[in-house]
Amino acid sequence: MTEPIAAGARRGRESGRRREGGSSRPRAIPQLPRRRTERPFPPVELISADEVESIHRTSLRVLEEIGMDFMLEEARLLLKEAGAEIQGERVRFPRQLIEERIKSIPSRFTLHARNPENHVELGGNRMAFGSVASPPNSADMEGGRRTGNQVDYRNFLKLVQYFNAIAFTSGYPVEPVDLHPAIRHLEALRDMAVLTDKPFHGYSLGKERIADAIEIARIARGISHETLEREPSLFTIVNTNSPLKLDTPMLRGIIEMASRNQAVCVTPFTLAGAMAPVTVAGAIVEQNAEALAGLAFTQIVRKGAPAIYGGFTSNVDMKSGAPAFGTPEYMKACIIGGQLARHYNIPYRTSNTCAANAVDAQAAYESVFSLWGATMGGGNLIMHGAGWLEGGLVASFEKFVLDVDLIQMVMEFLSPLDMSEDALGLDAIREVGPGGHFFGAAQTLARYEHAFYAPIISDWRNNQQWFAAGSPDALHKANAVYKQALAEYAEPAMDRAIHEELDDFVERRKREGGAPTDF
Amino acid sequence: MTEPIAAGARRGRESGRRREGGSSRPRAIPQLPRRRTERPFPPVELISADEVESIHRTSLRVLEEIGMDFMLEEARLLLKEAGAEIQGERVRFPRQLIEERIKSIPSRFTLHARNPENHVELGGNRMAFGSVASPPNSADMEGGRRTGNQVDYRNFLKLVQYFNAIAFTSGYPVEPVDLHPAIRHLEALRDMAVLTDKPFHGYSLGKERIADAIEIARIARGISHETLEREPSLFTIVNTNSPLKLDTPMLRGIIEMASRNQAVCVTPFTLAGAMAPVTVAGAIVEQNAEALAGLAFTQIVRKGAPAIYGGFTSNVDMKSGAPAFGTPEYMKACIIGGQLARHYNIPYRTSNTCAANAVDAQAAYESVFSLWGATMGGGNLIMHGAGWLEGGLVASFEKFVLDVDLIQMVMEFLSPLDMSEDALGLDAIREVGPGGHFFGAAQTLARYEHAFYAPIISDWRNNQQWFAAGSPDALHKANAVYKQALAEYAEPAMDRAIHEELDDFVERRKREGGAPTDF
Repeated sequence: MTEPIAAGARRGRESGRRREGGSSRPRAIPQLPRRRTERPFPPVELISADEVESIHRTSLRVLEEIGMDFMLEEARLLLKEAGAEIQGERVRFPRQLIEERIKSIPSRFTLHARNPENHVELGGNRMAFGSVASPPNSADMEGGRRTGNQVDYRNFLKLVQYFNAIAFTSGYPVEPVDLHPAIRHLEALRDMAVLTDKPFHGYSLGKERIADAIEIARIARGISHETLEREPSLFTIVNTNSPLKLDTPMLRGIIEMASRNQAVCVTPFTLAGAMAPVTVAGAIVEQNAEALAGLAFTQIVRKGAPAIYGGFTSNVDMKSGAPAFGTPEYMKACIIGGQLARHYNIPYRTSNTCAANAVDAQAAYESVFSLWGATMGGGNLIMHGAGWLEGGLVASFEKFVLDVDLIQMVMEFLSPLDMSEDALGLDAIREVGPGGHFFGAAQTLARYEHAFYAPIISDWRNNQQWFAAGSPDALHKANAVYKQALAEYAEPAMDRAIHEELDDFVERRKREGGAPTDF
Repeated sequence: MTEPIAAGARRGRESGRRREGGSSRPRAIPQLPRRRTERPFPPVELISADEVESIHRTSLRVLEEIGMDFMLEEARLLLKEAGAEIQGERVRFPRQLIEERIKSIPSRFTLHARNPENHVELGGNRMAFGSVASPPNSADMEGGRRTGNQVDYRNFLKLVQYFNAIAFTSGYPVEPVDLHPAIRHLEALRDMAVLTDKPFHGYSLGKERIADAIEIARIARGISHETLEREPSLFTIVNTNSPLKLDTPMLRGIIEMASRNQAVCVTPFTLAGAMAPVTVAGAIVEQNAEALAGLAFTQIVRKGAPAIYGGFTSNVDMKSGAPAFGTPEYMKACIIGGQLARHYNIPYRTSNTCAANAVDAQAAYESVFSLWGATMGGGNLIMHGAGWLEGGLVASFEKFVLDVDLIQMVMEFLSPLDMSEDALGLDAIREVGPGGHFFGAAQTLARYEHAFYAPIISDWRNNQQWFAAGSPDALHKANAVYKQALAEYAEPAMDRAIHEELDDFVERRKREGGAPTDF
């Protein structure tokens, strides 16, 4: 189910269609209006309630009997005070400690954007799709595969802003490696705040970086520190060092973010057979133990701080050790992860992944299988929604556009069906009668323009027309669309005073030397 | 959920792995063992029970107030006797007539193959995937797009037989146009019976052809006429001429098949905006009305005859009139069709479709969206499971292999999860501990060989290895695999007496001139 966002349909079907007439410009990219997405049916239950309980119980035994290494002393002191048993870096959690602490995590909350139309509500049946995040490389057809850089980084941000289906920036869509690591986060976060008006992510890479991210999110929204604490305006992904470790930068991230009431998504990186047991059930037990430990810690830092249960369990290719994505095992893990998150009543994060080296059939089917798992599994925050390729090593411009089309199709699939008297069509069927056709029926004429989803990529021309056009494939179409989107991109308005405050902050922090690079 | 078929795992993972060692032959194609597929969760309900009832009621009004043209007098006489109101070719159905008659359709039945291991059970949570059926053209990378012919026809049948994931032949995988229409069905059906030992389909193209198909199915199984009537051994698709017409050959098919207790699948071809209302709800109302009329007629012919509710509603591109497949509208129709079939407690047929011109990303995503709709919608008989391209105008050898991989992934996704104590992995996690890895863990060593699905197509090599191998894409891999499968194909054994009886029958019917060609 979807609800239109009143003032947000700037690039809806209507404006798209208007542009088609008369002008010599390329046809407008068919976009859905900006709108919220909601699943109209309950998520799938792949395992029974007893089996969910069995994973839960085993996870608690992992935390109680084996424990987890927390590498930051400050974190261990907080945990000790909360009742955990500490031995060196090892932290063992009494079962009740975990069960009690996670109760205070809100079941839903709003992630605030500088443009209120772009606030993202997380939890329940809501779904929000973000960009790809963190690949070290970018690629497109002409430029090939290359090391991530600021130009590509900014272009991806423009695509995030341009496409209505993308609700937030998941992180750096590609790492701008040409920026010095000490000041990279300052430049990159300023770009996120300026080039888009959607919510964004800050990396938990030490105290300074995440504190700078929080400050940039606050300045961009033009709000006080107090308002920021009431209104989560930044989120961070905390990846555990699976198995069973949480390192200093990540723990610092939890402390900085949770203490300011900003959103923390704890996502164990549990590839079955590598960093986790070779079974799906075992990998999920480990995922669940690590997620619960991190989530409980967010509440020890600040009771009631917004947090998200992150699932990222997949498998490796046992012949080569290479990570695999969009596999049947990935789908199962996606869906069971959702069952666990609902068991704890915590918003659920999953991803649109693939392992393909090219934007080919494999990239497409692995991505749709991932979206299938995310959608039927009850995902709320969908990371890496658009642009992810090569298991996350490459951000692809063409894949970004392809994924936007896939996400729009999922949104349309979930949109409510018109079941009105007119839509049921008895009159239209009566008008046409046996053996006729509906091309000229009154109902058709009244509705044909907006009757069906207009795809971005799909080529439905017949073989002769398609062949005459040079047999273009999805990749070539996506290439043309991403360039058109960049050409049509418009920077969202920002109050001059806010822009200056942002620049002043970034320049001051750069003069101060940015952040340490010894992480 | 899946159950292994005891003696059927001839080309399972085990034999595949053994072959890898030592030999210079190409590595065996990784196949799942032959097995039944069952959904372990209830299908999705996209609309409410009230809305299902609303579609049902409107469909009955279509049949009562507008009626449907039945073009065969014999059929109209049977319908009149059953209580329908006849005016010329128009048949109007009192509501109770439909509701009473469809009650006798079995909720599940077995479609029998000449090899008992290949019997297909239809209904409930069972899923069976068939080949593509009926394209006039075939294609592969080297030969390009060409008119269907007997060589390609036979090669497709060999692929049906070779791949365990394919449970039945949905019809001619490609039309063997080089065979004269009068005797085409005889040659084609003999090939189906000889080159495969899985259940198959006979076309309802007039009385002679469908009678010949029934006889060939009977001879191939080596059974009496009486046994055949107890054990459905052939199925036919009856497409209505939407809107609201059933032509003579199709009605003949219903009469011949139902009277012998063979399976009839009534599938309206209701493309929203062309042969059906421009709304999904309206197209489904029309689909449902036509399906109910045909299904009720099967029971008038013979009470209790096996029948299947067929859904094939999709939309057209309103700019060109071209059919579109694997769209959000298609997915919705798939799922609502399943809700209706379950409302009537009748097995449900759906399809794996796409509109793409090439085996590219579009073909892959449209197919996975179709499989998503079929799987979550409760499909039992999945037509066009492997090989369909260009909206059904082309049977593609590469697409066949790609689809087998997609189907296998769906089967694996649905397979039961190992939730044993060992699989839950507490011991493995204890053994490895924080900061370790699982490559050498005892659990990994015991399980790694069969831990995960081994894909046919997916290329998980890293970028350097993949690039060094010439950047192969899914299409090239599929091309190599289909040729390997043909090279490895073995004709299933057939009793010599049966083979002779089959040849005698076909040769006699050919001498008699086959079937009329004025249909």
